[in-house]
Amino acid sequence: MTDKKRKFWGWGSVGEGFSDADMRPYEAEYAGIFGVDGFTVDPFPRSEEIDLAAPRLAVPKSLEAVLSADHWERLVHTFGRAFHEQVRIMARDFRNAPDLVAFPRHEQDVIDVLDWCTRVKAAAIPFGGGSSVVGGVHPDVGEGYAGAVSIDLRRMNKVLEVDHTSRAARIQAGTYGPELEDQLRPHKLTFRHYPQSFQYSTLGGWLATRSGGHFATLYTHIDDLVESMRVVTPAGVHDSFRLPGSGAGPSPDRMFLGSEGALGIITEAWVRLQDRPTFRANRTVEFKDYFAGARAVRAISQAGLYPANIRLLNHDEVKYSGTASGEAAILVLGFEGADHPLEPWMARALECCSDHGGVVSAEGDEGAGDPRAGAAGRWRNAFIMGGYLREAMVARGLITETFETAITWDKFEAFYPAMIETVANATRAATGRAGIVSCRFTHVYPDGPAPYFTFRGLGTRGRLSEQYDIIKNAAADLLIDWRATITHHHAVGRDHRPWYDRQRSPVFAKALTAAKRALDPAGILNPGVLLDPAR
Amino acid sequence: MTDKKRKFWGWGSVGEGFSDADMRPYEAEYAGIFGVDGFTVDPFPRSEEIDLAAPRLAVPKSLEAVLSADHWERLVHTFGRAFHEQVRIMARDFRNAPDLVAFPRHEQDVIDVLDWCTRVKAAAIPFGGGSSVVGGVHPDVGEGYAGAVSIDLRRMNKVLEVDHTSRAARIQAGTYGPELEDQLRPHKLTFRHYPQSFQYSTLGGWLATRSGGHFATLYTHIDDLVESMRVVTPAGVHDSFRLPGSGAGPSPDRMFLGSEGALGIITEAWVRLQDRPTFRANRTVEFKDYFAGARAVRAISQAGLYPANIRLLNHDEVKYSGTASGEAAILVLGFEGADHPLEPWMARALECCSDHGGVVSAEGDEGAGDPRAGAAGRWRNAFIMGGYLREAMVARGLITETFETAITWDKFEAFYPAMIETVANATRAATGRAGIVSCRFTHVYPDGPAPYFTFRGLGTRGRLSEQYDIIKNAAADLLIDWRATITHHHAVGRDHRPWYDRQRSPVFAKALTAAKRALDPAGILNPGVLLDPAR
Repeated sequence: MTDKKRKFWGWGSVGEGFSDADMRPYEAEYAGIFGVDGFTVDPFPRSEEIDLAAPRLAVPKSLEAVLSADHWERLVHTFGRAFHEQVRIMARDFRNAPDLVAFPRHEQDVIDVLDWCTRVKAAAIPFGGGSSVVGGVHPDVGEGYAGAVSIDLRRMNKVLEVDHTSRAARIQAGTYGPELEDQLRPHKLTFRHYPQSFQYSTLGGWLATRSGGHFATLYTHIDDLVESMRVVTPAGVHDSFRLPGSGAGPSPDRMFLGSEGALGIITEAWVRLQDRPTFRANRTVEFKDYFAGARAVRAISQAGLYPANIRLLNHDEVKYSGTASGEAAILVLGFEGADHPLEPWMARALECCSDHGGVVSAEGDEGAGDPRAGAAGRWRNAFIMGGYLREAMVARGLITETFETAITWDKFEAFYPAMIETVANATRAATGRAGIVSCRFTHVYPDGPAPYFTFRGLGTRGRLSEQYDIIKNAAADLLIDWRATITHHHAVGRDHRPWYDRQRSPVFAKALTAAKRALDPAGILNPGVLLDPAR
Repeated sequence: MTDKKRKFWGWGSVGEGFSDADMRPYEAEYAGIFGVDGFTVDPFPRSEEIDLAAPRLAVPKSLEAVLSADHWERLVHTFGRAFHEQVRIMARDFRNAPDLVAFPRHEQDVIDVLDWCTRVKAAAIPFGGGSSVVGGVHPDVGEGYAGAVSIDLRRMNKVLEVDHTSRAARIQAGTYGPELEDQLRPHKLTFRHYPQSFQYSTLGGWLATRSGGHFATLYTHIDDLVESMRVVTPAGVHDSFRLPGSGAGPSPDRMFLGSEGALGIITEAWVRLQDRPTFRANRTVEFKDYFAGARAVRAISQAGLYPANIRLLNHDEVKYSGTASGEAAILVLGFEGADHPLEPWMARALECCSDHGGVVSAEGDEGAGDPRAGAAGRWRNAFIMGGYLREAMVARGLITETFETAITWDKFEAFYPAMIETVANATRAATGRAGIVSCRFTHVYPDGPAPYFTFRGLGTRGRLSEQYDIIKNAAADLLIDWRATITHHHAVGRDHRPWYDRQRSPVFAKALTAAKRALDPAGILNPGVLLDPAR
């Protein structure tokens, strides 16, 4: 982790983010969209404004080097980056701050902290980079606990071993994205797992939440990049064989992938790496008709070409992300590799596009080798800066959220307009005026896309969470009605629980509950996430 | 399922297999290898020779249409196709025959049979095609049960829905390989999952055992081809959303994939299909040096080319499979697809081969478009006939077995000679003379191969199982010592349990045991497989 001090009121570190001057173009845009003159700006909280209750837990002598009651750290570990949480930050509502924050130096510290938590009946909340947008790290653990400890793995941030032959590395779970890539760079290898949270999220967090990464096809979820894992549970340390593939019983790693801290704390993993790409082919293709673009994407996804990037932005996503004017949907298409020129791959993908009326943008051609050029580059910049935008928008009374799913192709063309309409109607009902809603594909499979929706509305101060709920709940209900997943890669956390419970079969819930009780008999691990807190 | 009557003493149906005349060339070959004059042939059992104890379970009136005490069917459902089982068949040892065989017509029958088994405390053994080579369907359930019921899903053999847009189908679990492809053919789609057992194994069996299929790279295990599953458990019917991808908690399907009948009975699944291939590129490449061949395979597997076939046969595998003389290792390399010509892919793969000293065989060129031609074709024929060979060899007192694993590339070049030597030494120790052991890759990953070993020795009648154990145990011990998986796609069954228990962490064993107790409180489901029988 960097030495920079983390913000407790928003994305990233102190000193980072949008200044008032930076926000002016956004203010002008949203003033136009919502028909208002401008925005007043609520101030972010200062740490000294916030009174925290004294910790309910006393630090035992044996863990003095690990546990902290530092005021700033308790604030930092109170919230992730969900919309609700941002509203509560602005309201200075830190009532669920963890009593203590643990910074284990090694696996034995994790074991010792969990042992102590079990003994004193403290809830243990694993914390990676704190980038959860679903309430996954918020210590709202209910009455049954003597207190709550946030367990931040940022001191465990080393690449421990690199196997060049197999292209794999053993990496500690607390390693942040940039420091992970920094340590691999001298080896000419890369993990190439770039969720939007990359700068402020960790390997352990990615694994615990089944993070979606850089590759838009094939190796989409981190699940497929795992050789083995070590996981500390109150019942012992799980350790799997490091394997390229196996058929020996149900996959143990797949039980811990997506367990969101409810079954154990991931301390390290062997993961599969890539050679650093030296060949690239990038194009931007415009489609007047969005569904024609989606059909081109389907053709490419079923052709066995496996582009690294195949992100289809609908007209509104193009417009509101500042990528282009929005007169056409845009497909950002890219191949990359370290072995061979990719023009035959790109040529065939472009044929699929032109079969469906796609036109390669001239500007895209110029930047064919450079994903930072042209419309693709502008979209990429908006993507990276997105993390900082939310806090600035909430401070201006704006509602902003993204949600994502996956659905099979046969249902997509009926589902998509239903979702756009549902969110538009709910935004109008919630806020009394029209909002905006847009869509892109983040990942694509032969049997269906992972559509990613963004909505924005002008909220009413004091009612932001309530207004947000009306929109978000309508969208989530529609997902489950369509049997689309409640999340493709954002995870379940506390916020998606009601819909996750409808998606998950009662039989699987029984099995998972039983597994949890076996590994965490005291029910201390991230209570309320995936399963109900212990009583 | 076909109308042909299944053999209870060997592979396939009555009337199929090697005749004595067919076996003559094999006898000549093995007589030469083992330095004997010839072989006497033990007769296969006839059904009327075998006395079975009367069923300990009475068929309840409500299940008369489903349960059978037919003598022949009880014999058919006593054994899978493991070496041990073949020896016991020849010894007429059917003491563990199931008391009854169930043939459910639909999911409700499966539910009713499991309910009844729970009530009367009968062990319930799911049975697909009976092709298990690891004792996965043998009703050796111990003392704690009132009897054993083999549950054969062959009546549930329909493709229920086809979604052309997403290229997927909903298929009943009892559907055999050939009838599955027959039903997809009119739709111009194919599942392309061809384990060696294809003709006599079912979708449900493939799913329950994490079967390895046709594709040597990328979509190797059936796991990656599953959209959703329905599974009947004593605690209810599990049903997952049909999704192209998801990140909502630990994958429910991944818990049932590889559960080998211990957690429930899979009744149907939505699976991902392919267009029928219209483009093919096949070549055979010879390598004087086996490790040079392996390094070429590694280069191709890390290049992002994803061949459908990349099976490297070592010198002895080439020789003893009758593929060629065995002066060189042979790489059977193939690309296939339905979208575009594959020559750029093949051209780059052949460059990787020639970088490592590989020479394209002239004969292979002739059959470039036809996987049935040349050395590749001869190997393919041996592969398909392999199922029938075992029973004929055991009848001649020969020990024959295959086992398989996966291991990372960094360890492979030290592991491989250690394994060859271990099996050779154990064969000599067990049988008093040299045997043969050979190796091929069945599947290949960027981080390692799945080597598949075949060993043969001249056994002593009456001591075949004991001799076999000496060899198999030495091989299995070595796998676990190297932290290579005890099975890549053959499954665990009853035979691999001791090594699976060493591979699986105690923490995961606790979780799986707890999940099993939650779904199957009476412990009736396939007792002894993956977990100990209930007490």
